[in-house]
Amino acid sequence: MKAIVKTKRGKGLEMRELPLPSPGSDEALIKVEAVSICGTDLHLDQWDGWARERVKNIPQIIGHEFCGKVIEVGGSVTRVKPGDYVSADSHIPCLFCIPCLRGEHHLCFNLQILGVDRDGCFAEYITIPERSLWKNRPTLPPEIASIQDPLGNAVYATLVEPVAGQDLVILGDGPIGLFATGIARAAGASRIMLSGLNPLCLNIGQMMGADHVYHAGETDIVKAVLGETKGVGTDIVLEMSGSPRAISDGLTLVRKGGRFSAFGIPSRPVSIDFNEQIIFKGIRLYGINGRRMFETWFQMAGLLNSNRLDPRPVLTHYLMFDEFEKGFLWMEETPRQAAKVVLFLDPHLFKEAEGRR
Amino acid sequence: MKAIVKTKRGKGLEMRELPLPSPGSDEALIKVEAVSICGTDLHLDQWDGWARERVKNIPQIIGHEFCGKVIEVGGSVTRVKPGDYVSADSHIPCLFCIPCLRGEHHLCFNLQILGVDRDGCFAEYITIPERSLWKNRPTLPPEIASIQDPLGNAVYATLVEPVAGQDLVILGDGPIGLFATGIARAAGASRIMLSGLNPLCLNIGQMMGADHVYHAGETDIVKAVLGETKGVGTDIVLEMSGSPRAISDGLTLVRKGGRFSAFGIPSRPVSIDFNEQIIFKGIRLYGINGRRMFETWFQMAGLLNSNRLDPRPVLTHYLMFDEFEKGFLWMEETPRQAAKVVLFLDPHLFKEAEGRR
Amino acid sequence: MKAIVKTKRGKGLEMRELPLPSPGSDEALIKVEAVSICGTDLHLDQWDGWARERVKNIPQIIGHEFCGKVIEVGGSVTRVKPGDYVSADSHIPCLFCIPCLRGEHHLCFNLQILGVDRDGCFAEYITIPERSLWKNRPTLPPEIASIQDPLGNAVYATLVEPVAGQDLVILGDGPIGLFATGIARAAGASRIMLSGLNPLCLNIGQMMGADHVYHAGETDIVKAVLGETKGVGTDIVLEMSGSPRAISDGLTLVRKGGRFSAFGIPSRPVSIDFNEQIIFKGIRLYGINGRRMFETWFQMAGLLNSNRLDPRPVLTHYLMFDEFEKGFLWMEETPRQAAKVVLFLDPHLFKEAEGRR
Amino acid sequence: MKAIVKTKRGKGLEMRELPLPSPGSDEALIKVEAVSICGTDLHLDQWDGWARERVKNIPQIIGHEFCGKVIEVGGSVTRVKPGDYVSADSHIPCLFCIPCLRGEHHLCFNLQILGVDRDGCFAEYITIPERSLWKNRPTLPPEIASIQDPLGNAVYATLVEPVAGQDLVILGDGPIGLFATGIARAAGASRIMLSGLNPLCLNIGQMMGADHVYHAGETDIVKAVLGETKGVGTDIVLEMSGSPRAISDGLTLVRKGGRFSAFGIPSRPVSIDFNEQIIFKGIRLYGINGRRMFETWFQMAGLLNSNRLDPRPVLTHYLMFDEFEKGFLWMEETPRQAAKVVLFLDPHLFKEAEGRR
Repeated sequence: MKAIVKTKRGKGLEMRELPLPSPGSDEALIKVEAVSICGTDLHLDQWDGWARERVKNIPQIIGHEFCGKVIEVGGSVTRVKPGDYVSADSHIPCLFCIPCLRGEHHLCFNLQILGVDRDGCFAEYITIPERSLWKNRPTLPPEIASIQDPLGNAVYATLVEPVAGQDLVILGDGPIGLFATGIARAAGASRIMLSGLNPLCLNIGQMMGADHVYHAGETDIVKAVLGETKGVGTDIVLEMSGSPRAISDGLTLVRKGGRFSAFGIPSRPVSIDFNEQIIFKGIRLYGINGRRMFETWFQMAGLLNSNRLDPRPVLTHYLMFDEFEKGFLWMEETPRQAAKVVLFLDPHLFKEAEGRR
Repeated sequence: MKAIVKTKRGKGLEMRELPLPSPGSDEALIKVEAVSICGTDLHLDQWDGWARERVKNIPQIIGHEFCGKVIEVGGSVTRVKPGDYVSADSHIPCLFCIPCLRGEHHLCFNLQILGVDRDGCFAEYITIPERSLWKNRPTLPPEIASIQDPLGNAVYATLVEPVAGQDLVILGDGPIGLFATGIARAAGASRIMLSGLNPLCLNIGQMMGADHVYHAGETDIVKAVLGETKGVGTDIVLEMSGSPRAISDGLTLVRKGGRFSAFGIPSRPVSIDFNEQIIFKGIRLYGINGRRMFETWFQMAGLLNSNRLDPRPVLTHYLMFDEFEKGFLWMEETPRQAAKVVLFLDPHLFKEAEGRR
Repeated sequence: MKAIVKTKRGKGLEMRELPLPSPGSDEALIKVEAVSICGTDLHLDQWDGWARERVKNIPQIIGHEFCGKVIEVGGSVTRVKPGDYVSADSHIPCLFCIPCLRGEHHLCFNLQILGVDRDGCFAEYITIPERSLWKNRPTLPPEIASIQDPLGNAVYATLVEPVAGQDLVILGDGPIGLFATGIARAAGASRIMLSGLNPLCLNIGQMMGADHVYHAGETDIVKAVLGETKGVGTDIVLEMSGSPRAISDGLTLVRKGGRFSAFGIPSRPVSIDFNEQIIFKGIRLYGINGRRMFETWFQMAGLLNSNRLDPRPVLTHYLMFDEFEKGFLWMEETPRQAAKVVLFLDPHLFKEAEGRR
Repeated sequence: MKAIVKTKRGKGLEMRELPLPSPGSDEALIKVEAVSICGTDLHLDQWDGWARERVKNIPQIIGHEFCGKVIEVGGSVTRVKPGDYVSADSHIPCLFCIPCLRGEHHLCFNLQILGVDRDGCFAEYITIPERSLWKNRPTLPPEIASIQDPLGNAVYATLVEPVAGQDLVILGDGPIGLFATGIARAAGASRIMLSGLNPLCLNIGQMMGADHVYHAGETDIVKAVLGETKGVGTDIVLEMSGSPRAISDGLTLVRKGGRFSAFGIPSRPVSIDFNEQIIFKGIRLYGINGRRMFETWFQMAGLLNSNRLDPRPVLTHYLMFDEFEKGFLWMEETPRQAAKVVLFLDPHLFKEAEGRR
């Protein structure tokens, strides 16, 4: 089978021909139909500091966002069967550590991540333990089914407390920030203010439902939001950029008694004024990692299946699997030329997806 | 001033000329601009068993849903001033009983209800303690500002737990059930199934966002919903009819681990199978009364001010104040000819509202 | 091995000699050290209406409360190993139905209950799927380790919302009500009022920390609690008797804005005044079934391991396994002569337990 | 009347003779019976940077922790009457700003603090708006009634999420940390680990129920707690020292999925590793300021009135009001010679309190 492989501890990826994997007793073998490119995949391509420290196994197939059809199942698998249309949470929990036993699989002590700790999904076939699989509604378009793992991040971060009737600031116009905009809109947010650095993405933000978009390089976001909220700040701040400055601005902007979701991963420590930014304001701050398995997936399915949420404006580019280098290039350029790129393994599905635009 | 008055302990209401009230030190005098008719007002008109037992003061001006402008304020009033555009929670809490001190004003031990325990708003002027007043956004249309008290019931009952991505059954097609439909839709509900007995109202339910409407006299609602949910039931049931049968059906329909909001007031005890309907299903059941003061109002303002929620399809009829008898008639007929009737005291505002249809 | 078996569809139990079971690939074989008798076991003995309808397999070993040592594990078992000291949740969830995927294993659609749907623990050995096993602290006395399944019911029902600083009424002086009394006391309840019908058990209730105990046959519990709370009622009501009268009294006693946990299983429908008992009071009512797997177990371990909670006053009798008939007799008599009976399979452990009294 | 007054913008306090204040229409005049000294009072005495910037009115009576008897009430006061035994929340909310209308009085935009923004309670008499008064149980000893304001801080910070069955680290052995230890113990905490710098206070911590106390100058608290918890960390961290190092250590110690309450006020920004300390761990962090009015007070009364919580070991010294300089000295020395000092205005109450030791 064809697969996109990290073949050496250095910059670059290669398309390779590899033998078909066979499923363990608790695994399913899946024929991949579509995959999508995440920031993590860019780190792996570029082999930056994070990648150098984090990745143990080389060579390894990368990728963790996908959908496909079950082809074969191991002996102890009971929940899925050949023909099922599935995606997976990229997190493979052990089920038996303390967090798993508490129902917090996303915080598993022994977490394995697809395409980072074990072979990923940028391949024609993949084997995955049943416990991480999610059965898709049969009519869910593959371009949507493929991006549920990052969409789930946004669902969890946005809806960890309710948003109906609340004002939000969303900091960061990457795919998660854009998804969060659509989720907040679908879930009844009052005003949504989105900031970012990429005009293409800010424009998508408006399509997803932002009431105000701010270019963080051109606008003083603190001043703008305080102006818009008569100095009160917003009920909710979603930090999805990982910029230390944005984290600090966000803590300044959340209102007294408000909520802050920390999702973006800063590359260095952040200096926080605990008194003015946290304590005297009496805020609640949530660290958000992964998605709840599978509470978040049910909630996401409820939003997707009833068409309350359409993430497709964020999926700026569809390509065939062989053209992956083009997709990586678009996403790695400054400024980014693509928000989210979906790669199809089947030309028929590719054409159908293009037809749905 | 003109006022609609319950003048005797028997059927009927009268339009009377009364002296202008003057505000106490903690009260505001308000020039009423629009009022709306609630089921409670129908009970007072018809002088049924509930009314006979509940009402102490006769004669008394009825009505509790309104908006208007502050004309004058008492000496200790600080939050509102002449010219402010206000509505009020119909519940006047004491502030100092145990529930009030806990922040649960809607459960006040010494609650006074406008138009029931003291003179109401079906008049050209009304005095109301500052603590129950709510300042409206200046551009909020009066027909909407007037119905916020019942809309708030629906906001509280619907959003007491989040609805984003969840399936709902709403039992009852009165104004509260119809408002709840729109609120659930705005707040990201997945599928909404509404049942009721009035074709006019069920049709409005579809306009408010119901995915399925069922005539409870023609359809077996339990069978229909279980069919729609593959036997699982729904995440959430909102009981807004007060029918003992609907309460029981709703408890049958809520899924394992689901949520039930009890709002409708049945006229007799209801027989419940605690084992199958509550305990083995592990549900959470909420008794809902009034609205949180003012958490619910903030949430409602967030939904209304950003235009995520438009309750106007439920407001089937606008009339001038003098035509109140027509409004009562339409709502008292079987089947009801009106969902919600708004009465205007100012012909100019009436015309503007008609123009916005 | 020796086992207590329901051998026929009629009154009675028999001690039988049976072959040793062997564990499936996901199961552990456990040498049982102590078991305890539950009301369910009495129903099975007496073969009442519930038992006749519920039990499919005869002959079957009964019992579901125990502790023991792992002897052997199946091929796919990873969390436990021979020598581990374990108990189990009596509920064996499927892991893959909708509630299980939501983290609500206690509401599993395909639940199997030990000793009801498959062979139970009243035997020298038992096989149990790893997913229901709980590893005990090595020093936990077996009489306590054995009763964690029902203790967990009480932990879940009592602590589904916090009790610190709150007044409680606990209705029912069976083992769950008595355990709940100790749990509420350990978790900082303010006043605890316990009602029941058995003087022996009410006396134990006082040892567990009840501030007031009421004999429900002699005292008007509604009058007594309203007197004690100046007419307000209590913050929390735990219904653990299953008496329709107690359910109704409890709903009368819970204060405005309070919480009601429904655990006891009434034998017939209960007539509820939704208006006065639920809606106007704005209460939250929880149906409680089983225990959360394993959030409740962690919380229970936190209470037990630090000696904040000692359930032993409720364990009125220790017997050797062979004397089981005596234990059943004491619990089936009216009035009950025992609250909770623990049976030991090892005379040494029995003597140690007696020594700890 | 006698009063302890900040008479000039510089170090020091003076006992002065002042005229009796008279209550406004919404105020009560209270004869003070006992007061206690808070860290804030020390800042005011020492006139440090915080005090210089914060205090507007000089001269001003300081102090905000007290109990006493109502002597006279203003015309609009309804909840208290002469003879009532009261304390007060030191926060005087406006009732009408956005946070107040949301029921978050402790986050009031227009908060006035007793003894900081208006005359305080270190005097024979004080006037206080009714809305901040709390009626004490008549039999509550004055030394306890006096310290409810800081005890309430600890109740709110500790019980913002439940602690029953949970492990805690409490960082800081000042009065709030010591109170929190007793509250966590009363509310069913599993293991409590307390760190601080004062041997006297750490010893009191053990009396309040800490299982382990660590001298932060001698022990590596991170290493110690990770050792004690097998590397997992604790369910809950309460930061009550305000030390930047302790904040960071606390964020390292909270387990995956755990809770962190930030109460102590650091004197400079703190550098936080959002990735490892917040996001990947999926924690919830609460900023804690003041106490909920009056939810926290009800909870505190529930703990105090039933004798589940006895804060008196923290009250190391009782003095007569005239001896206040001794109390300030003890608390300002390094190391502190006193945890909490209570000053009595009535020699009879002083003797009774000493007799209760």
